[in-house]
Amino acid sequence: MDLFDNLSPLDHRYYMSNQELAESLREYLSETAVIKSEALAEAALVKALAKSGLCSHEIAKEVLEAAKVITPEEVYAEEEKTKHNIRALVNCLRNRVSNVAKPWIHFTATSVDIMDSATSYRYKRVTEELVLKVLIELEETLIKLARDNAKVLQMGRTHGQHAVPITFGFSVALYVERLGSRILFIKEASQKLTAKLAGAVGAYNASSVVVTDPLQLEADYATELGLKPADIATQIVPPEPLLDLIHGYISAFGVLANIADDMRHLQRSEIGEVFEFFASTQVGSSTMPHKRNPWNFEHVKSLWKSFMPRMMTIYMDQISEHQRDLSNSASARFTGEIIAGLCLATDRLNRVLARIRVDEEAMLRNFNQSAQMVIAEPLYILLADAGHPDAHECVRKLTLESGQTGKTLWQLIEEDEELVNLLASLPEKQLQVIKDPTKYTGLAAAKAELICDKWEGLIKEVKR
Amino acid sequence: MDLFDNLSPLDHRYYMSNQELAESLREYLSETAVIKSEALAEAALVKALAKSGLCSHEIAKEVLEAAKVITPEEVYAEEEKTKHNIRALVNCLRNRVSNVAKPWIHFTATSVDIMDSATSYRYKRVTEELVLKVLIELEETLIKLARDNAKVLQMGRTHGQHAVPITFGFSVALYVERLGSRILFIKEASQKLTAKLAGAVGAYNASSVVVTDPLQLEADYATELGLKPADIATQIVPPEPLLDLIHGYISAFGVLANIADDMRHLQRSEIGEVFEFFASTQVGSSTMPHKRNPWNFEHVKSLWKSFMPRMMTIYMDQISEHQRDLSNSASARFTGEIIAGLCLATDRLNRVLARIRVDEEAMLRNFNQSAQMVIAEPLYILLADAGHPDAHECVRKLTLESGQTGKTLWQLIEEDEELVNLLASLPEKQLQVIKDPTKYTGLAAAKAELICDKWEGLIKEVKR
Amino acid sequence: MDLFDNLSPLDHRYYMSNQELAESLREYLSETAVIKSEALAEAALVKALAKSGLCSHEIAKEVLEAAKVITPEEVYAEEEKTKHNIRALVNCLRNRVSNVAKPWIHFTATSVDIMDSATSYRYKRVTEELVLKVLIELEETLIKLARDNAKVLQMGRTHGQHAVPITFGFSVALYVERLGSRILFIKEASQKLTAKLAGAVGAYNASSVVVTDPLQLEADYATELGLKPADIATQIVPPEPLLDLIHGYISAFGVLANIADDMRHLQRSEIGEVFEFFASTQVGSSTMPHKRNPWNFEHVKSLWKSFMPRMMTIYMDQISEHQRDLSNSASARFTGEIIAGLCLATDRLNRVLARIRVDEEAMLRNFNQSAQMVIAEPLYILLADAGHPDAHECVRKLTLESGQTGKTLWQLIEEDEELVNLLASLPEKQLQVIKDPTKYTGLAAAKAELICDKWEGLIKEVKR
Amino acid sequence: MDLFDNLSPLDHRYYMSNQELAESLREYLSETAVIKSEALAEAALVKALAKSGLCSHEIAKEVLEAAKVITPEEVYAEEEKTKHNIRALVNCLRNRVSNVAKPWIHFTATSVDIMDSATSYRYKRVTEELVLKVLIELEETLIKLARDNAKVLQMGRTHGQHAVPITFGFSVALYVERLGSRILFIKEASQKLTAKLAGAVGAYNASSVVVTDPLQLEADYATELGLKPADIATQIVPPEPLLDLIHGYISAFGVLANIADDMRHLQRSEIGEVFEFFASTQVGSSTMPHKRNPWNFEHVKSLWKSFMPRMMTIYMDQISEHQRDLSNSASARFTGEIIAGLCLATDRLNRVLARIRVDEEAMLRNFNQSAQMVIAEPLYILLADAGHPDAHECVRKLTLESGQTGKTLWQLIEEDEELVNLLASLPEKQLQVIKDPTKYTGLAAAKAELICDKWEGLIKEVKR
Repeated sequence: MDLFDNLSPLDHRYYMSNQELAESLREYLSETAVIKSEALAEAALVKALAKSGLCSHEIAKEVLEAAKVITPEEVYAEEEKTKHNIRALVNCLRNRVSNVAKPWIHFTATSVDIMDSATSYRYKRVTEELVLKVLIELEETLIKLARDNAKVLQMGRTHGQHAVPITFGFSVALYVERLGSRILFIKEASQKLTAKLAGAVGAYNASSVVVTDPLQLEADYATELGLKPADIATQIVPPEPLLDLIHGYISAFGVLANIADDMRHLQRSEIGEVFEFFASTQVGSSTMPHKRNPWNFEHVKSLWKSFMPRMMTIYMDQISEHQRDLSNSASARFTGEIIAGLCLATDRLNRVLARIRVDEEAMLRNFNQSAQMVIAEPLYILLADAGHPDAHECVRKLTLESGQTGKTLWQLIEEDEELVNLLASLPEKQLQVIKDPTKYTGLAAAKAELICDKWEGLIKEVKR
Repeated sequence: MDLFDNLSPLDHRYYMSNQELAESLREYLSETAVIKSEALAEAALVKALAKSGLCSHEIAKEVLEAAKVITPEEVYAEEEKTKHNIRALVNCLRNRVSNVAKPWIHFTATSVDIMDSATSYRYKRVTEELVLKVLIELEETLIKLARDNAKVLQMGRTHGQHAVPITFGFSVALYVERLGSRILFIKEASQKLTAKLAGAVGAYNASSVVVTDPLQLEADYATELGLKPADIATQIVPPEPLLDLIHGYISAFGVLANIADDMRHLQRSEIGEVFEFFASTQVGSSTMPHKRNPWNFEHVKSLWKSFMPRMMTIYMDQISEHQRDLSNSASARFTGEIIAGLCLATDRLNRVLARIRVDEEAMLRNFNQSAQMVIAEPLYILLADAGHPDAHECVRKLTLESGQTGKTLWQLIEEDEELVNLLASLPEKQLQVIKDPTKYTGLAAAKAELICDKWEGLIKEVKR
Repeated sequence: MDLFDNLSPLDHRYYMSNQELAESLREYLSETAVIKSEALAEAALVKALAKSGLCSHEIAKEVLEAAKVITPEEVYAEEEKTKHNIRALVNCLRNRVSNVAKPWIHFTATSVDIMDSATSYRYKRVTEELVLKVLIELEETLIKLARDNAKVLQMGRTHGQHAVPITFGFSVALYVERLGSRILFIKEASQKLTAKLAGAVGAYNASSVVVTDPLQLEADYATELGLKPADIATQIVPPEPLLDLIHGYISAFGVLANIADDMRHLQRSEIGEVFEFFASTQVGSSTMPHKRNPWNFEHVKSLWKSFMPRMMTIYMDQISEHQRDLSNSASARFTGEIIAGLCLATDRLNRVLARIRVDEEAMLRNFNQSAQMVIAEPLYILLADAGHPDAHECVRKLTLESGQTGKTLWQLIEEDEELVNLLASLPEKQLQVIKDPTKYTGLAAAKAELICDKWEGLIKEVKR
Repeated sequence: MDLFDNLSPLDHRYYMSNQELAESLREYLSETAVIKSEALAEAALVKALAKSGLCSHEIAKEVLEAAKVITPEEVYAEEEKTKHNIRALVNCLRNRVSNVAKPWIHFTATSVDIMDSATSYRYKRVTEELVLKVLIELEETLIKLARDNAKVLQMGRTHGQHAVPITFGFSVALYVERLGSRILFIKEASQKLTAKLAGAVGAYNASSVVVTDPLQLEADYATELGLKPADIATQIVPPEPLLDLIHGYISAFGVLANIADDMRHLQRSEIGEVFEFFASTQVGSSTMPHKRNPWNFEHVKSLWKSFMPRMMTIYMDQISEHQRDLSNSASARFTGEIIAGLCLATDRLNRVLARIRVDEEAMLRNFNQSAQMVIAEPLYILLADAGHPDAHECVRKLTLESGQTGKTLWQLIEEDEELVNLLASLPEKQLQVIKDPTKYTGLAAAKAELICDKWEGLIKEVKR
């Protein structure tokens, strides 16, 4: 079949846009990966049965070998007949083993014992081996960007209005913190995913009949998959651990979206403080040859809009009637797309940030546009400190006057004897920030470094 | 490549589950379909240019032929270089035509003139040719089901509690109405999708330079694609027409979900009034061989949970800064999935409803469980009609007494001389519904037929 | 009680921010309004009963008088006992009428016959009398703004990048169109809201027992409330008409959010093309006295974020099991908040846009920043028109050269003999847009006027 | 003003429905509470200033006294003039203190230093003092319900179909676990809420000018409010800690919704296993006096539908441009409603579950309906265990035959010599579950107790 005949952009356009990453994603999230993980879960079950003494270890090995070679094609062909995906898988496995092994495949299990456990297994692994990896790559890029620009003066902006100065590295450090917190959240949540082997309604009905310690059997099965068993389950594992993990993903996505929005606004023609890298053969617009668009940042924001609302599906899937209804079945199959979307967006953002061009001159030019106004804040602080009874109101009026007369705040101050006298009482060091507003960056540079130090340490621990 | 390596269930599992429908969906919604439609839009543009006298009709034909054979593979290969999808398409088209034709390809257009118009073209066509078709098939199945069961007594249920009787056909007729209203809404909305040829910022800047009547050129272009031009646009067409159409889809999906919920509850073990068809080789549960699960209904509900929240993406994409930002680009690529999901769910629901088994005996059995309580309502109505000063309270107490003593309401009435006298004043026809509660179905059967008549007529018109 | 003890910002802060509008909203959306409308519906029912001959017109009048004076306080006091809101209302009405009238109150009706009809009545009225009114006020402000600025040159922006010029009025006209389309949608949707008097399960069970023509009784009842009856219902009216109306509200809200986003970005310090009005006593920031924030625009965007997701509640409420479950009861009580939010946001936006300050000089200054680059588009168009074989690529390279050398496009053209010759073949009128980029506004001004004409006409019709 | 004139159901109907709880909610979530907390934050700031030696402790005390008596009315009156809520608050505080104290109020702070810190303070306290309290009450009710019914036989249901047996207590224990996990999540998340005193853009610009150690000042301020400072901030604290907490709320709400759905389905007329308590004067339906509706459970589900989607608002509010835009201002004001909704739903659910009537006879009756089919599962397990080569398929056919012939599975087994022989090889203890299906409950009862033990312990720790 032809890739371009697919319906999902994840399976055509975004596959093409990053084939290496896409191939990695498929190892965990494709239908092949799903079936492979379920086959491995079936093998893990037989291994646990062998450990409990019910069957031989040879049988467990035989089933594991069968599980390794099972193909989606044969399972789907069998499902045509059974109309039941796990029964089809079981039949396929049975067909590949000796008669003595056959009865032990899926023994005492219900379908979801296999499916939910396999899902936890896949999501735990994809999180540890792929999601965290790309998130950490981005985190490290952000740390580098923050350090490299720790002292680069930038106008701080609130409401899109010039406020008081920061450094560009400081603004990036904020994202180091926010993304870092998501990395920790996701790591922790992934470790709480659970397996189960509690049967059709969670009460170990079947296994209790033939096994002395069904909880031990379940624990062995879970361990085999690198998981812990759910303390209690219905037919399905409690949905909250996975829900928390996906909240981690979605909230990490939100951080990416915020970075993307910030960067694309800094790339506005009038601002021009940062620029996406642009290849010399690249076309910005099919009709406006001069355009240099922040299309990668827009792309990241756009993916966020596509995936964030899907959290609602996961919240709705918290509800399953009695010992489970199947109404989370189709919807849960789409969950892997959220992971794929997050990884693709993270990788894209990482690549564009790694090569971003920071225009320090533009930052200074923009700063200078409001430099004289910036000192309104320290001026009012210092006046208050010097004993002015209503400093904020006083300065507010000065700024209005400045706007109307075109005089700088400093000029207006010098025209006002009372203010001059008040300020004269202050130490020179404090007056400096009024005379040279570029000095008024507070702890920006220091904080940037501090936050980078903190997260370099924490990321090291996460990587372990 | 292997289908099972795909990430999206739409591109593996749900492709396999209904290959015929999936192939139809691909004709409109795959990446191949996207590129094909854009190539056709480019051809439509040259045809409009030819009509305006700017180039020859031979050139238009030449471009059309080129457009017909363009492949996604070549466009993607070219995009590797240009990093711009429409410029890549244009280059590929140029490569396939004579030098004299080259300059006219994409002449005066901006990328989105092509992309948005092609999208409207595809969504209008898939709606008319596919979505409405499957929805109408379901509507006709519902009409048949309603008519076949117009007189089949069923207990009406509110709050999951037995209320007063209806007929099963009546309950289905409600869905005939609701789905019908969505069919009309979708049809109407699809006809409001628009094309545009207004250039990079919607002001016809480029076309104004070289064409006498840019609006006529745009109208010709739109007509060629079976569309009307947007009355005004930025770089993109106003988002509301497509938003309305998708609201139509999503709200139709909600009707399906409601049908599915109703039916699966009617299939509960304790209720057992309807049953999904079950093949003799089909497996209900991998561990409980006796199970007959409403898995298709659950599937439909589950798809709704997966797709409904995506409406939020469309609402967010209403916002595009100034003359457009690209942050709807990736997200809009996923819109086709909603259409695919709706069609798949509709088709699935249609197939299961077409073969649904209605158990009239079970309906009667369930009705009889509360038949004696049902008459509480007509009793209180008739008592009030006969002049009882506080009929509702009187009957409410009788039902409590009935619950405590085990006596039927009718027995309790006969023990109360006042009530007997009051009822004696009523015509026999009115008393009949108290004596035989199965008669107390009001206009249920008649309404069922009336609604079916109405929608048979309206559907005929939609089909025209 | 104290207003500031309320939990909802709608009932404290946003009440205070616009008391006149808030009072109007309360007339339709408060709990008092809910109960009043239900009492009127009960009166309408008795009037319909009188029309059918079941009771006298005097009784109907008596009930209407009682309905007019009913208070929420007495209904709530009664509900303490009945635990049922409509039974409480009925009891209160009964207490206020003569014995002969008592039995006819609520006769044959189920609670929802009253509640759903009263809701349709309130939402239809609030839409016609309030929502459309404020939306039209905003539309008229937009029309004025578009006309006043129809010829004011502004740089068109895509991706936040300077593209090619438009006029400010043209950019506003786009919103005239989009908001206009929502006004029509909402008007139409509000007219499709329905009443019902079909009883507990929609089958007219009760009314059929005592009335010859229950459909006529229902039609009379609906007419009394200015509504049409639903063609079929369960206990509740089909949810789609209200769903469509709320989609209309939410999508109108999206248009407001887009306007707000555009305007607040145009107010960025570096852009400064528009400004919110600022009173002389107003404080922009508690700490930065010089700040002039687009806080009203931000407020509108913020309200959209608060209310848009609530559409999901309405979509979920499409699902009601069998002849209804009550799980839409509490959620539906919050629907009125969406209306309040939309009205408040619309009014706020209208007030700020009505006094907005447009800085034409800033618009020209920003335009001039990229004026030389703007001509890239017409240049490539004209070169192609003049026969250049690869005009887009040629101009793309010129822009790169311009960026590297600092020379203007025009200078580079004049250095290239081939280009000079090609352009020499073009009529002077076409060359003008290259020589004077401010002329390159296409149909912007004309379209702005055209769209204003169109909507002035349509709004007149809506107002009728 | 009249309570019933309010727009929000939280401020009229749901205030009335639980006035005691509503009053508690107001202490943390009303506008009065907001302003009070902000005044306290201003006082905490002056206290920190005093600790740093900038002003005297007498001044700090003076400000604290002023903060305690500030009223919303005076702040709103002042805001009329300033158009800025915190500047208004500051002015009001200044008016209430001596001239010497005036300059220190709000000194070096930006509005959001106060607002975000006050919000964290309120949400941390309402979580610890109210939300966790009501959630724990519900948890304890669930534990009691689970223990009381640990051995009460109930049919397990998957897909709404009878599966294999559990105990009612076991099904409740699942919710003990799920709600418990939410309680821990919420507790932990609430402790991560942060304060800030980093100024207008987060860089301590202002405080750096006048204070030696701005970080120490911030830490003192945060400690005063029982919080930790954010490690880095813009104008606002990073949104993720609050986002996580609200995810905790919303996901707890999802657990309530699931309980409510389960219980209302168990109350269906045909199932009748549990019943809401019904007062003798209570009216079930205005027209059907016999109805006993699960209206409280429906109410809880309905509130979930109303509040769950609001999580999308919080996700959208993750995005704030540069050092903040104000577009989260209005939306954030509605966040408290989520808390109120959750508390009201929890309390309602707790009250109805505390008095729920469990009908053990009905549970047994429903179980018996499928008792013979239930044994299909252990039968297939035991056959497989006994060496049957294809036990699942064998039993699946038996169940079909049973359905067609009306014979029980046991009868069919006894007719089949091979099966009889196979089963004869099994120990009597295993056969018991086939002969008496009520024994086939696995570990249900034991697990129920185990989970209750676990959570009783954990809840004790949370309470500490």
